[in-house]
Amino acid sequence: MLTGHQTWVFNSKPVIISSAAVGGPFEAKGALAEDFDYLHQDVWLGQDSFEKAEKKLLEQACETAISKANMKKEDVQFFISGDLMNQIISSTFTARTLGMPFIGIFGACSSSMESLAMASLLIDSKAAKYVLAAASSHNIAVEKQFRYPTEYGAQKPPTAQWTVTGAGAGLVAETGDGPRVTSATIGRVIDMGLTDPYNMGSAMAPAAVDTIEAHFRDLNIDPSYYDLIATGDLGRVGHIIASKLLAKHGHEIPPEIFTDCGMLIYKKDQPVMAGGSGCGCTATVTYGHLLNRMKKGELKKILVIATGALLSPLSYQQKESIPCIAHAVSIEI
Amino acid sequence: MLTGHQTWVFNSKPVIISSAAVGGPFEAKGALAEDFDYLHQDVWLGQDSFEKAEKKLLEQACETAISKANMKKEDVQFFISGDLMNQIISSTFTARTLGMPFIGIFGACSSSMESLAMASLLIDSKAAKYVLAAASSHNIAVEKQFRYPTEYGAQKPPTAQWTVTGAGAGLVAETGDGPRVTSATIGRVIDMGLTDPYNMGSAMAPAAVDTIEAHFRDLNIDPSYYDLIATGDLGRVGHIIASKLLAKHGHEIPPEIFTDCGMLIYKKDQPVMAGGSGCGCTATVTYGHLLNRMKKGELKKILVIATGALLSPLSYQQKESIPCIAHAVSIEI
Repeated sequence: MLTGHQTWVFNSKPVIISSAAVGGPFEAKGALAEDFDYLHQDVWLGQDSFEKAEKKLLEQACETAISKANMKKEDVQFFISGDLMNQIISSTFTARTLGMPFIGIFGACSSSMESLAMASLLIDSKAAKYVLAAASSHNIAVEKQFRYPTEYGAQKPPTAQWTVTGAGAGLVAETGDGPRVTSATIGRVIDMGLTDPYNMGSAMAPAAVDTIEAHFRDLNIDPSYYDLIATGDLGRVGHIIASKLLAKHGHEIPPEIFTDCGMLIYKKDQPVMAGGSGCGCTATVTYGHLLNRMKKGELKKILVIATGALLSPLSYQQKESIPCIAHAVSIEI
Repeated sequence: MLTGHQTWVFNSKPVIISSAAVGGPFEAKGALAEDFDYLHQDVWLGQDSFEKAEKKLLEQACETAISKANMKKEDVQFFISGDLMNQIISSTFTARTLGMPFIGIFGACSSSMESLAMASLLIDSKAAKYVLAAASSHNIAVEKQFRYPTEYGAQKPPTAQWTVTGAGAGLVAETGDGPRVTSATIGRVIDMGLTDPYNMGSAMAPAAVDTIEAHFRDLNIDPSYYDLIATGDLGRVGHIIASKLLAKHGHEIPPEIFTDCGMLIYKKDQPVMAGGSGCGCTATVTYGHLLNRMKKGELKKILVIATGALLSPLSYQQKESIPCIAHAVSIEI
């Protein structure tokens, strides 16, 4: 199963038998609105805090994925989830609602693919028959926690990104119909010394490149193996850096294959600066848009590399640089 | 491998080929001082913040575990770790130092056994040959983040617990000498509606009981199977509740078998109120004291149930109750 240094090849090819993507009002105006199962016009989701609203998004994504598979939550053995809130409260409170055995994970915005990689490992190793993998983020909850409350009206530089309000969930099983998870590459922490939390794409790009290169090396394949290679949330700034770094290292990926979830989710006229970000970005784009494209026959083999900036506001205040990580999952149909 | 609803039986019996426990000055005065590899007299560990001091503890535990096995960090495929800091920065910054592929996890104080369970799963499923599992906490960093800076001198009720300043790490392998991980039970989130962050033992006791019962049920064994059953950090208050709840449900565990890491680590005359707590509590007691007792032949079969209170200061302020979880790992020699 371990292939090369850091890649798992799943011989049983765990199946994503259902998935769901839920978003907020800004995502409803975005480029991928049709790929969401639910889009909320109220950024509060009827709750009295943004954190509780995020929990609602995640609960809805999880419950939708389960019901789309015509299953009950009692049939699912494990719930694996992570998010950006301190102590991953969106995930833990959703785990309380679901009542399933819960494996909490944290990889910042890489959580979406960390949870899918772990879920696939559990299925492949017969540690479970059904595992629900999920991740979420909420724009205003994240701004409040990591930067400033949005009411403050702080300005941002063009390198900043817009955290997606959304949650995505995938139900992974031993057998069934649907796209299959064929391998996963677990990333190392890469820190090039960048310190600007308004330029996460630049900080995360080298981590994405490190994981992509490890994936190709471990599996002895090249970019042409995939129809689409999508990083998580590098945005426009990080995407250019990642493309150039890969080319410099001899892994030039044609622009029609290489993209970024943060560049796909919003329309060009939405004021998102360098693009989308947050756990909910890769999660909703993958579990909604990309899997839909696979089911339509437009894509057969994709590699999703979710990137995460592992800073906290406190590590930033203590003048630490931003450690970054990326986890890659390959999905084939 | 999946046995019953939520337990993994590891047929290959992954081996803990080495482990390490590192503590601070208060642990040096504790009941288990002799079981630590390193005890620091300086609670700052020469750093300029308590968060950086916690990272140093964790780095030292990890590096010690690796060197005790006469290995290099390059030989270890994955590092799995969690802690109580926001965005688990102790673990992520340690992962940056170690340079290994990193799987970040979060289960509050249950992180110690969540990481050991996942590490054992990776070994058993041949997803790795060597995995380092770890967890840490730092008393003053935790007080500052979850309650008040210690300089404030806030008083605490007798139900409160003392967060351990310490880190523990275990190196898990396919083959070798040492105690073996035979099974793990992943817990559900249990929330009985308790809201007092100064009485975590009471909040977590039902989660511990739920996981212990699931473990016995899934494996069709009873408490007499084990020489020692140790919960993580219920402390004296939570331990009584857990004992009574188990007895009420027909699982009476004799007091000479049933204990709690938070009751073991400090001496009776240390002012720790209801006992020790924190990820570092179960981690140091297990990877130091309990494994040492196994190697001495005093214990042959133990079950460690690490408990976690999954609240954040923000969920508390928003009047949420405290969701709790417990993950159990059985170790045999």
